[in-house]
Amino acid sequence: MNLEIIGILAGLLTSSSFLPQILKIYKMKSAEEISLPFLLMQLIGILLWLFYGFTISSIAVVFANILAAIGIFTLILEKLLYR
Amino acid sequence: MNLEIIGILAGLLTSSSFLPQILKIYKMKSAEEISLPFLLMQLIGILLWLFYGFTISSIAVVFANILAAIGIFTLILEKLLYR
Repeated sequence: MNLEIIGILAGLLTSSSFLPQILKIYKMKSAEEISLPFLLMQLIGILLWLFYGFTISSIAVVFANILAAIGIFTLILEKLLYR
Repeated sequence: MNLEIIGILAGLLTSSSFLPQILKIYKMKSAEEISLPFLLMQLIGILLWLFYGFTISSIAVVFANILAAIGIFTLILEKLLYR
Protein backbone atom coordinates (compact mmCIF):
# COMPACT_ATOMS: atom_id res chain seq x y z
CA MET A 1 0.00 0.00 0.00
CA ASN A 2 1.25 3.44 -0.89
CA LEU A 3 2.58 5.14 2.24
CA GLU A 4 1.42 8.58 1.16
CA ILE A 5 -2.16 7.20 1.00
CA ILE A 6 -1.99 6.32 4.72
CA GLY A 7 -0.74 9.84 5.46
CA ILE A 8 -3.51 11.39 3.36
CA LEU A 9 -6.11 9.16 5.09
CA ALA A 10 -4.71 10.25 8.48
CA GLY A 11 -4.85 13.86 7.34
CA LEU A 12 -8.41 13.51 6.04
CA LEU A 13 -9.53 12.08 9.40
CA THR A 14 -7.82 14.61 11.70
CA SER A 15 -8.80 17.55 9.47
CA SER A 16 -12.39 16.63 8.69
CA SER A 17 -12.87 15.83 12.41
CA PHE A 18 -13.33 19.58 12.93
CA LEU A 19 -16.54 19.48 10.85
CA PRO A 20 -18.79 17.69 13.44
CA GLN A 21 -17.40 20.06 16.12
CA ILE A 22 -18.16 23.11 13.94
CA LEU A 23 -21.72 21.83 13.31
CA LYS A 24 -22.28 21.00 17.00
CA ILE A 25 -21.40 24.53 18.12
CA TYR A 26 -23.49 26.00 15.29
CA LYS A 27 -26.53 23.96 16.39
CA MET A 28 -26.06 24.70 20.11
CA LYS A 29 -25.26 28.39 19.44
CA SER A 30 -22.78 28.14 22.32
CA ALA A 31 -19.03 27.63 22.54
CA GLU A 32 -18.61 28.26 26.25
CA GLU A 33 -16.94 24.90 26.91
CA ILE A 34 -14.48 25.30 24.04
CA SER A 35 -11.08 26.55 25.22
CA LEU A 36 -9.73 29.56 23.27
CA PRO A 37 -6.08 28.74 24.19
CA PHE A 38 -6.74 25.25 22.71
CA LEU A 39 -7.86 26.81 19.42
CA LEU A 40 -5.03 29.37 19.25
CA MET A 41 -2.31 26.79 20.05
CA GLN A 42 -3.81 24.51 17.40
CA LEU A 43 -3.77 27.34 14.83
CA ILE A 44 -0.12 28.31 15.45
CA GLY A 45 0.91 24.63 15.55
CA ILE A 46 -0.93 23.88 12.29
CA LEU A 47 0.80 26.81 10.54
CA LEU A 48 4.18 25.45 11.72
CA TRP A 49 3.18 21.95 10.50
CA LEU A 50 2.40 23.49 7.10
CA PHE A 51 5.89 24.99 6.94
CA TYR A 52 7.41 21.66 8.08
CA GLY A 53 5.34 19.69 5.55
CA PHE A 54 6.38 21.96 2.66
CA THR A 55 10.03 21.64 3.69
CA ILE A 56 10.06 17.83 3.96
CA SER A 57 7.89 17.70 0.78
CA SER A 58 5.19 15.63 2.49
CA ILE A 59 1.99 16.01 0.45
CA ALA A 60 0.04 14.37 3.30
CA VAL A 61 1.29 16.81 5.96
CA VAL A 62 0.67 19.87 3.73
CA PHE A 63 -2.77 18.70 2.58
CA ALA A 64 -3.92 17.79 6.10
CA ASN A 65 -2.79 21.06 7.61
CA ILE A 66 -4.37 23.28 4.95
CA LEU A 67 -7.73 21.60 5.72
CA ALA A 68 -7.08 21.71 9.49
CA ALA A 69 -6.24 25.44 9.33
CA ILE A 70 -9.61 26.14 7.65
CA GLY A 71 -11.38 24.04 10.33
CA ILE A 72 -9.64 25.68 13.29
CA PHE A 73 -10.13 29.16 11.80
CA THR A 74 -13.89 28.45 11.54
CA LEU A 75 -13.95 27.21 15.17
CA ILE A 76 -12.18 30.39 16.32
CA LEU A 77 -14.83 32.50 14.52
CA GLU A 78 -17.57 30.45 16.23
CA LYS A 79 -15.87 30.83 19.61
CA LEU A 80 -15.72 34.62 19.17
CA LEU A 81 -19.34 34.70 17.94
CA TYR A 82 -21.00 32.42 20.52
CA ARG A 83 -18.52 32.61 23.48
CA MET B 1 17.69 26.32 12.00
CA ASN B 2 17.25 22.61 12.32
CA LEU B 3 14.12 21.57 10.44
CA GLU B 4 13.24 18.84 12.91
CA ILE B 5 13.12 21.51 15.65
CA ILE B 6 10.33 23.33 13.75
CA GLY B 7 8.44 20.04 13.45
CA ILE B 8 8.91 19.32 17.16
CA LEU B 9 7.77 22.86 18.04
CA ALA B 10 4.70 22.36 15.82
CA GLY B 11 4.07 19.02 17.50
CA LEU B 12 4.49 20.48 20.99
CA LEU B 13 1.94 23.21 20.18
CA THR B 14 -0.75 21.03 18.58
CA SER B 15 -0.33 18.29 21.21
CA SER B 16 -0.13 20.42 24.34
CA SER B 17 -3.12 22.44 23.04
CA PHE B 18 -5.33 19.63 24.38
CA LEU B 19 -4.26 20.50 27.96
CA PRO B 20 -6.24 23.79 28.31
CA GLN B 21 -9.28 22.01 26.78
CA ILE B 22 -8.92 19.10 29.24
CA LEU B 23 -8.67 21.55 32.17
CA LYS B 24 -11.64 23.64 30.94
CA ILE B 25 -13.94 20.59 30.81
CA TYR B 26 -12.65 19.42 34.19
CA LYS B 27 -13.43 22.81 35.77
CA MET B 28 -16.86 23.12 34.11
CA LYS B 29 -17.72 19.46 34.80
CA SER B 30 -19.48 19.47 31.45
CA ALA B 31 -18.56 18.31 27.95
CA GLU B 32 -21.95 18.72 26.33
CA GLU B 33 -20.64 21.04 23.59
CA ILE B 34 -17.73 18.73 22.71
CA SER B 35 -18.49 16.53 19.68
CA LEU B 36 -17.80 12.81 20.22
CA PRO B 37 -17.36 12.17 16.45
CA PHE B 38 -14.69 14.95 16.52
CA LEU B 39 -12.80 13.12 19.28
CA LEU B 40 -13.11 9.66 17.69
CA MET B 41 -12.01 10.88 14.24
CA GLN B 42 -9.07 12.66 15.87
CA LEU B 43 -8.08 9.46 17.72
CA ILE B 44 -8.16 7.24 14.62
CA GLY B 45 -6.39 9.91 12.57
CA ILE B 46 -3.68 10.35 15.20
CA LEU B 47 -3.03 6.58 15.31
CA LEU B 48 -2.64 6.62 11.49
CA TRP B 49 -0.28 9.63 11.78
CA LEU B 50 1.79 7.64 14.28
CA PHE B 51 2.12 4.79 11.79
CA TYR B 52 2.95 7.28 9.00
CA GLY B 53 5.51 9.06 11.19
CA PHE B 54 7.26 5.82 12.12
CA THR B 55 7.40 4.80 8.46
CA ILE B 56 8.85 8.10 7.16
CA SER B 57 11.13 8.18 10.28
CA SER B 58 9.92 11.64 11.29
CA ILE B 59 10.74 12.12 14.99
CA ALA B 60 8.52 15.22 15.04
CA VAL B 61 5.45 13.43 13.65
CA VAL B 62 5.89 10.42 16.01
CA PHE B 63 6.56 12.58 19.08
CA ALA B 64 3.62 14.93 18.38
CA ASN B 65 1.16 12.13 17.81
CA ILE B 66 2.10 10.13 20.93
CA LEU B 67 1.36 13.27 23.01
CA ALA B 68 -1.78 14.03 20.98
CA ALA B 69 -3.07 10.47 21.46
CA ILE B 70 -2.75 10.85 25.25
CA GLY B 71 -4.56 14.22 25.09
CA ILE B 72 -7.43 12.98 22.92
CA PHE B 73 -7.79 9.80 25.00
CA THR B 74 -8.16 11.98 28.13
CA LEU B 75 -10.77 14.16 26.37
CA ILE B 76 -12.75 11.04 25.36
CA LEU B 77 -12.74 9.88 29.01
CA GLU B 78 -13.98 13.34 30.07
CA LYS B 79 -16.67 13.32 27.36
CA LEU B 80 -17.92 9.92 28.58
CA LEU B 81 -17.77 11.05 32.22
CA TYR B 82 -19.38 14.51 31.95
CA ARG B 83 -21.43 14.17 28.68
